[in-house]
Amino acid sequence: MNRVALITGVTGFIGGELARRLIKDNWSVAIVVREGSDLSSIADISAASTTYRYDGTTESLTSILDEAKPDVVFHLASLFLADHVPSQVTDLIGSNVLFGAQLLEAMVACGVRNIVSAGTSWQNFHSDSYRAVNLYAATKQAFEDILGFYVDRYALSSVVLKLFDTYGAADKRRKLITLIVDAVKNAQELGVSPGEQVIDISHIDDVVEHFLRAGEFSIARELPKSHVFFVSGERFTVKELVKAIESAADTKASIVYGARPYREREVMYLPAVDGKTPPWDSLVSKISLRQGVQALLNS
Amino acid sequence: MNRVALITGVTGFIGGELARRLIKDNWSVAIVVREGSDLSSIADISAASTTYRYDGTTESLTSILDEAKPDVVFHLASLFLADHVPSQVTDLIGSNVLFGAQLLEAMVACGVRNIVSAGTSWQNFHSDSYRAVNLYAATKQAFEDILGFYVDRYALSSVVLKLFDTYGAADKRRKLITLIVDAVKNAQELGVSPGEQVIDISHIDDVVEHFLRAGEFSIARELPKSHVFFVSGERFTVKELVKAIESAADTKASIVYGARPYREREVMYLPAVDGKTPPWDSLVSKISLRQGVQALLNS
Repeated sequence: MNRVALITGVTGFIGGELARRLIKDNWSVAIVVREGSDLSSIADISAASTTYRYDGTTESLTSILDEAKPDVVFHLASLFLADHVPSQVTDLIGSNVLFGAQLLEAMVACGVRNIVSAGTSWQNFHSDSYRAVNLYAATKQAFEDILGFYVDRYALSSVVLKLFDTYGAADKRRKLITLIVDAVKNAQELGVSPGEQVIDISHIDDVVEHFLRAGEFSIARELPKSHVFFVSGERFTVKELVKAIESAADTKASIVYGARPYREREVMYLPAVDGKTPPWDSLVSKISLRQGVQALLNS
Repeated sequence: MNRVALITGVTGFIGGELARRLIKDNWSVAIVVREGSDLSSIADISAASTTYRYDGTTESLTSILDEAKPDVVFHLASLFLADHVPSQVTDLIGSNVLFGAQLLEAMVACGVRNIVSAGTSWQNFHSDSYRAVNLYAATKQAFEDILGFYVDRYALSSVVLKLFDTYGAADKRRKLITLIVDAVKNAQELGVSPGEQVIDISHIDDVVEHFLRAGEFSIARELPKSHVFFVSGERFTVKELVKAIESAADTKASIVYGARPYREREVMYLPAVDGKTPPWDSLVSKISLRQGVQALLNS
């Protein structure tokens, strides 16, 4: 019997890549998408998995979990907004708190015990304890609070992986590393901030590996518990990142530092992760930025 | 110029009594109620305040705050459920997380800086740090973490008062103290749990006084900060509580201990409050259980 995974957020970068990996590894995969979600970008995934539509109610999730009976739920769905405007508050709470709470309730109703979800390092703005960079990160913390209750009350087994920056060929987000690689590739000028902020970057294949191992960890757990781990890769200042990309590409980039100001609440330095990485951390062979960037340049 | 308070949750016990006190003290009071809320039980309050209807959107709250321009928001609205069933998850998140987040967003949009809200000791189930007794308490913690972001990001001034048990003549909830007083009053038998659990009980007039002082504290704040204080009254085991009520009433109660089992996740002992009570705590002259019960018996 293959293991069964239920995944939310497959239309996103990490959820999609995780689904592809699970399918490749012969897991039986169920995906949950909103009614009306456009699945054209994940046709390969939906063809190789069972697709369920969520109608906004707890009851629809209960029916889904009851049918799918997953060994583990990978909860990757979230609404990401670096900044929000007032009209987005309802959607942020709906996607990042309500949907997760409904999912947990459905798990309890169906006897599904194991969940792996994605947190963000932005829950630790210049702090080793909770301090949110933005409302997105605050909603992630709010979900973690609710998750903590479900784990404790209903003996669930949970792993939250708190992510820093991630990158990879399938990433359609316009993140800084992509912009820099594109600038190198196309020999174009790129205006950036003064570039002294530190980022922590992991290749998507490593992140997916962490989710897989977290799933196994969650399934194998002896005691119900809420585990929270940081997934940490390599750390650079933005200026160092540019140099590393130039070195990997063997090309000089045309970067104009200070062309943009730092963002409001720019993350300048990162929380320490010592003792907060997963127990399997050393088993994940990290893809170096050099390798990852060369793969991006060739893609 | 009178101070202006905006209150949510006036149809509840504490919100209603706070509104009456503020009106009595010549505050200018604005109340926010849901569309369709029945205000017949608070006709005295709505007659002496400005009533605004919330339609579920952030925008409606922004319009309300923009017109009311309160010096302080007293956020007492919440959906209380000791236990929940799956169909109530959406309402719990909606009332206790989403509505509060929308309120904070509206405050920021309108330049309203001060908020006092109600937390619960049930966020500390047999623990000095966060551990929720029930989903209700978990949603309170989720709101507190979202509040923490707004305070930090937008320089709000916030006080959360974490409440234990409260009682008073206007209380329509069927709480244990009311049931015991009624049993004494009507010379009826009452079956209860084995009765060894500890409760911490405050008279509503004291709780209202704490909210008023928290409002002034919030307005007078020098630095934006998120303050969290416990409101603690007298502590008794249930058995001791019965004895104290019998003594105040000068009548023997007919209580059958062990007639009911303890609840699932019964709170048997309480978090320590040393150093976590408000700085004005000693200024609130606590109404003793004896006085409070005698007032109840005479009401």
